[in-house]
Amino acid sequence: MLQKRKLSINIARLKTDIEALGEFGKNDKGGLDRTTFTSSELAAREWLKSRLEHSNLVVKVDEAANIWGKRKGARNLPSIVFGSHIDTVPNGGKYDGALGVLMALEVLRVLEENGIVTRHPLELVSFSAEEPNPFGLSTFGSRAVSGKLTKVNLIDVADTAGTKLTDALRSAGGSFEQFANCIRKPIELSAYLEVHIEQGKRLVNSSIPIGIVMAITGIYREQITVIGEANHAGTTLMEDRKDALAAASELILSLERACLRHPSKEVVGTIGKITASPNAPNIIPDKVTMSLEVRGKTSLEIQEVLAAFTLDCLDCKEKRAVQIERKVLLDQAPAEMDEVVMEAIKSSAELLNFPYLILGSMAGHDAAHMAAITRSGMIFVPSVGGKSHCPEEESGLEDIEKAANVLLHSILSLDEKLDV
Amino acid sequence: MLQKRKLSINIARLKTDIEALGEFGKNDKGGLDRTTFTSSELAAREWLKSRLEHSNLVVKVDEAANIWGKRKGARNLPSIVFGSHIDTVPNGGKYDGALGVLMALEVLRVLEENGIVTRHPLELVSFSAEEPNPFGLSTFGSRAVSGKLTKVNLIDVADTAGTKLTDALRSAGGSFEQFANCIRKPIELSAYLEVHIEQGKRLVNSSIPIGIVMAITGIYREQITVIGEANHAGTTLMEDRKDALAAASELILSLERACLRHPSKEVVGTIGKITASPNAPNIIPDKVTMSLEVRGKTSLEIQEVLAAFTLDCLDCKEKRAVQIERKVLLDQAPAEMDEVVMEAIKSSAELLNFPYLILGSMAGHDAAHMAAITRSGMIFVPSVGGKSHCPEEESGLEDIEKAANVLLHSILSLDEKLDV
Repeated sequence: MLQKRKLSINIARLKTDIEALGEFGKNDKGGLDRTTFTSSELAAREWLKSRLEHSNLVVKVDEAANIWGKRKGARNLPSIVFGSHIDTVPNGGKYDGALGVLMALEVLRVLEENGIVTRHPLELVSFSAEEPNPFGLSTFGSRAVSGKLTKVNLIDVADTAGTKLTDALRSAGGSFEQFANCIRKPIELSAYLEVHIEQGKRLVNSSIPIGIVMAITGIYREQITVIGEANHAGTTLMEDRKDALAAASELILSLERACLRHPSKEVVGTIGKITASPNAPNIIPDKVTMSLEVRGKTSLEIQEVLAAFTLDCLDCKEKRAVQIERKVLLDQAPAEMDEVVMEAIKSSAELLNFPYLILGSMAGHDAAHMAAITRSGMIFVPSVGGKSHCPEEESGLEDIEKAANVLLHSILSLDEKLDV
Repeated sequence: MLQKRKLSINIARLKTDIEALGEFGKNDKGGLDRTTFTSSELAAREWLKSRLEHSNLVVKVDEAANIWGKRKGARNLPSIVFGSHIDTVPNGGKYDGALGVLMALEVLRVLEENGIVTRHPLELVSFSAEEPNPFGLSTFGSRAVSGKLTKVNLIDVADTAGTKLTDALRSAGGSFEQFANCIRKPIELSAYLEVHIEQGKRLVNSSIPIGIVMAITGIYREQITVIGEANHAGTTLMEDRKDALAAASELILSLERACLRHPSKEVVGTIGKITASPNAPNIIPDKVTMSLEVRGKTSLEIQEVLAAFTLDCLDCKEKRAVQIERKVLLDQAPAEMDEVVMEAIKSSAELLNFPYLILGSMAGHDAAHMAAITRSGMIFVPSVGGKSHCPEEESGLEDIEKAANVLLHSILSLDEKLDV
């Protein structure tokens, strides 16, 4: 145990990698334009593969263009997999995704240079197209590996410029024809671990360096249409109005209130998109269409917010004599992280004397899909100012070092404990 | 007096005119497409001019293409003018405007066939382009006549198809070059009267046939911009948000509340236009732009509503840490109607035993501009269901007959009382 505690990652080397990968796709605003399958992302892939080969890993690009780097284990056991993604949103930052991949590489290098042979094979993974992209398919790589995304989903998909997804996939080393071969069977996998920036303020606000994710937040989306009555904005008395926008305003505030009042701080609700009709200054709106989104780490908390909102919808319909139509667009349940993996992260943080916080992810991640095929867990690194998906996205070097060491020791712990 | 009371308009003849004019611009939805200077409106103008000539009136089309029909008076006095407009909104109805013009014609015919010679010359007027139109210049004719709209306002004005306003004006008999000649000097005018449909429910709801307008409602418009902070809809806790749309919703409800709570039933506020940015389901809106409109029959009631709204804006800024920018686009004060004219209408209604209601116009009218150059008044006719600017727009024949007779007797009364 004493020997293990001494084992630690090389933060200077990791920093060099972060800076190097952060050059690919750099724009004049200081952000990164490294959307999946663009030339800058393809160049970043080549850089990554050469770094993996340089570290004595066996490199493989699968049919979904996911990049894998494998290190042999002493025993004939399934692999412990860890990594994240290297694509970015337009004008994104250099930590989102990249940090998880480069930390995995650093962990593997430390084991290699210390001559440590694990019982399980270890595999680094860099998933394709985690971020929203012009092909409309985010978490592309992890959905493919977990069998949720198949050939049929790729047919006739193109970006707005007309580039076919199947061609873009081939340019990155993938294959439409053999797509099904990228699927990893549960029997081949022992566990999946992912380090990612938090993209929120919970860790920074509480000055805690390590986040242990208990669930990948579920996402529920509706389209809501409020129908009132268009009328002359001058001649229609207030009491005679059926103003769809005033009714919609009540619903917007109702959702906000339901989330604020809920005992869980992590359940959030957003109405981000709204259009009014006829949308003229002198006509009372007869129709408002808007999006509703609720995210929570348990299905229960999502349902509790929706129940409060539904009550207010009924009140509003009654009071204002408007119609409210609700259509569910998405109901993605939260993905619980594995207790054994969480315990391994927890004990590693304790070993290193780092305080930790157990939290919901609040954003979507590849780990949500990996959780469907193997025991999975995530470690969050604090985000300075809670910012992400922007050039200002940052994580402090000390926090990065702590998370990388927790990852290193979590893998060693899982390797020791898991016999599958 | 007894003889006068017997004098009354011919409702059958008036009905025939309403039906005939209602054929111009009729569409397949049963509404009228008779926007200013379109071919259907030009045809309606020709029809009207021939009807005026047929009734022994001296017809003149002025430089703003307003149509005038004059009947001589016995004395060298200024004219008593009455009328309205014959253009419609797209898919409008056959009563808005048209009723005031055709009633004026009917009144003049009754005087003619009864051989009644008034002391003042009487002039029917049909104003050009009262309704919103593709040239963006409503109440065009009355603004021109009252000197509020001049040549300089016409230069480079075109509709979306590229038709120049100056060309459209010429096609209707107007003249850009001689535009200033359409101005009527106060010394030439004794009074202006306009009959119009109410476009609201106050008369029908109280079963009162005659509305006497005390003021043309003032209109105040702002553009409001609410600036918050865009952020990830998943990872940003409710307490960390600066949601511009939630803030805007508070303001929408604040305006509604301020109007509902105001003791005057006739002060109304509308937020009819809204756009949110970036307008995506998974991003907290950072910017909302919206219109604000307040209408009232006195400047005081408009100011009182705005004062309550302003207090709520300050609260909202403070509580939500958002910015609220307000830009005044229009501040058109209410135009009070003349007491002598109101008194003439009132005494005529009493003479005929018709109940009346004194009210604000709630909509804009040509009378607002005529009030700047002569003593003016308006008579409102009940609108079935309060509807206007739609094919269902209607006024009952009995109500139309009553209003026309009140107009007839109001003109005779003013002719008797006014020595200017």
